[in-house]
Amino acid sequence: MPSILRYDEATSDWVIFAPSRSRRPDEFRRGKATRVSDSEPPTACPFCPGNESLAPHELYADRPPGGSSRDWLVRVIPNKFPALRIEENERRHDESDGFRSLGGYGAHEVIVESHDHHRVLCEQPVEQIERVLRAVQSRHQDLMQDPRIQTVIIFKNHGEGAGTSLRHPHWQLIATPVVPRMLRQKHQVATDHFDRTGDCLYCVLLQRELSTGHRVLTTNDDFVAVLPYASHVPFETWILPRRHLSSFAMHPGESLRQLAELLQTVLRKLHRGLDNPDFNLTIDTVARGDEVKSYFLWHMRILPRLTTPAGFELGSGMSINTVLPEEAAAYLREIDITK
Amino acid sequence: MPSILRYDEATSDWVIFAPSRSRRPDEFRRGKATRVSDSEPPTACPFCPGNESLAPHELYADRPPGGSSRDWLVRVIPNKFPALRIEENERRHDESDGFRSLGGYGAHEVIVESHDHHRVLCEQPVEQIERVLRAVQSRHQDLMQDPRIQTVIIFKNHGEGAGTSLRHPHWQLIATPVVPRMLRQKHQVATDHFDRTGDCLYCVLLQRELSTGHRVLTTNDDFVAVLPYASHVPFETWILPRRHLSSFAMHPGESLRQLAELLQTVLRKLHRGLDNPDFNLTIDTVARGDEVKSYFLWHMRILPRLTTPAGFELGSGMSINTVLPEEAAAYLREIDITK
Repeated sequence: MPSILRYDEATSDWVIFAPSRSRRPDEFRRGKATRVSDSEPPTACPFCPGNESLAPHELYADRPPGGSSRDWLVRVIPNKFPALRIEENERRHDESDGFRSLGGYGAHEVIVESHDHHRVLCEQPVEQIERVLRAVQSRHQDLMQDPRIQTVIIFKNHGEGAGTSLRHPHWQLIATPVVPRMLRQKHQVATDHFDRTGDCLYCVLLQRELSTGHRVLTTNDDFVAVLPYASHVPFETWILPRRHLSSFAMHPGESLRQLAELLQTVLRKLHRGLDNPDFNLTIDTVARGDEVKSYFLWHMRILPRLTTPAGFELGSGMSINTVLPEEAAAYLREIDITK
Repeated sequence: MPSILRYDEATSDWVIFAPSRSRRPDEFRRGKATRVSDSEPPTACPFCPGNESLAPHELYADRPPGGSSRDWLVRVIPNKFPALRIEENERRHDESDGFRSLGGYGAHEVIVESHDHHRVLCEQPVEQIERVLRAVQSRHQDLMQDPRIQTVIIFKNHGEGAGTSLRHPHWQLIATPVVPRMLRQKHQVATDHFDRTGDCLYCVLLQRELSTGHRVLTTNDDFVAVLPYASHVPFETWILPRRHLSSFAMHPGESLRQLAELLQTVLRKLHRGLDNPDFNLTIDTVARGDEVKSYFLWHMRILPRLTTPAGFELGSGMSINTVLPEEAAAYLREIDITK
């Protein structure tokens, strides 16, 4: 049964229903859920070299000239259990009972970081991290060629507590046929700020953080890593480009090396300082049509999963953070990653 | 160090920073976090009878006439590690670096469900569940007497995966000095619907669900339990009053028995059907000043924690649900709770 989206009239959110990712209702009983297993045999891993036939439809590969099919350095394939698929349609549909749905049009892709089933991203050399970022950006650009795609959500889940179901390190892209309400709201706030002041809100926040410095973790020529003033979770870390650019898809390719360097440093500090924490990483960028607008600065957010959002967070949408970001930043600055 | 709130200019959210609930940065290392333990000795539990001196400041108690201090049936005490406290102020403060904060004014209370350290809510008799609801409503009413309180967030966390840190069954209330942005947004959507149609959106959604019936789990004279059309998570269940009323604080006390009955049925079905799942429960109600408005219907949301929100959800604010609510409702309707 294909995916559909349903409109939540109470929040204006679209919810994706993906039965191809589903289990039967009774399989939600405690303990029956599939979990990442340490004993997972590498031969069964669809991302490991030699198993390319398990995912024959290759969307992108970074392969040295003359390499054979398994000689890839980074590989992008469709998600086997996609949340959205280009085979569906993107038409709104009014149901007879007054509710509203939408076909599950879109795409869901997996970027496999390397051949190595066990090596986490921060242990990769900078040039490999750069290759991964190049693959992500290339797929982002390609998906946005389709005028029916409104946004591309770019993310990486690390660790079971962050929702990983396959251990082999990877990123994912989900291209959606609607602009998510949360992004609309963020972009509206930023647009209001721009209309009022003439400045990009994120560039202003970045300059403030650079001028106080308390929450800056590390910088290089093109990027700044900062634990933001109003971090929603402990050790939340953002990487922002110094130069104003609203879309990740349009970031100059030659600058991705600098992003790879900073990302490696940030992830190594979190890895050593917090003993390999579970985390989610997302790239926040603009929706279709806003690529050259002045109001938004694309950025990367790294969200360690150190605490569990509970009833207060679900009931209010507010966060309770137990660590001030300036204290978390001071702690991480002291972590030695050279040894 | 007292709590403060910091304004997130990128989202318009206020984030609560609660250092009294905090650990040092290095204590976030994996495995160092405090966890609920099965071996937790009941003598150390501040909610167990006989330990009243561990929480001497009693805010409410349901106690039979002539009962001694430990003869309570339901007891409400301040949270020992409060997110917000009435000792703080609620003034906005512009920091020298351009950011904005707010004193941690508010309240954070714990409703202890009974003497029993182990008995979960659905195993309590209906009259005890009614006592709990009466205590929750009484505290909600009392906190709203304070004009500096804007909203009261009412919630219950069940199980470690839902963020519980103390096993003895309890509810919590957090009274906030601001209206959370998420509530503002929900209320705005409902107000727009009311302005356009003259009807309460939630009453309309309830009537639609009753007329199709596929997603209705159970009903009684005053309440309806339904798994909503656009459920954000598997087995999400709402309990809505049949009669329009925007504020839980104003719901007629004599009707709480009916709510207790329906809540017991819903929780027993989830408990048996999903083998005691972790869940969060929240009561969604209006902010100060909107108690008699026509646009919102207060309701209870029960959110089982069967799946883990990951990078896509954090990056987009959208949800991927793998079970259609009509299938989940059909499954739960078949669960026999009479034996």
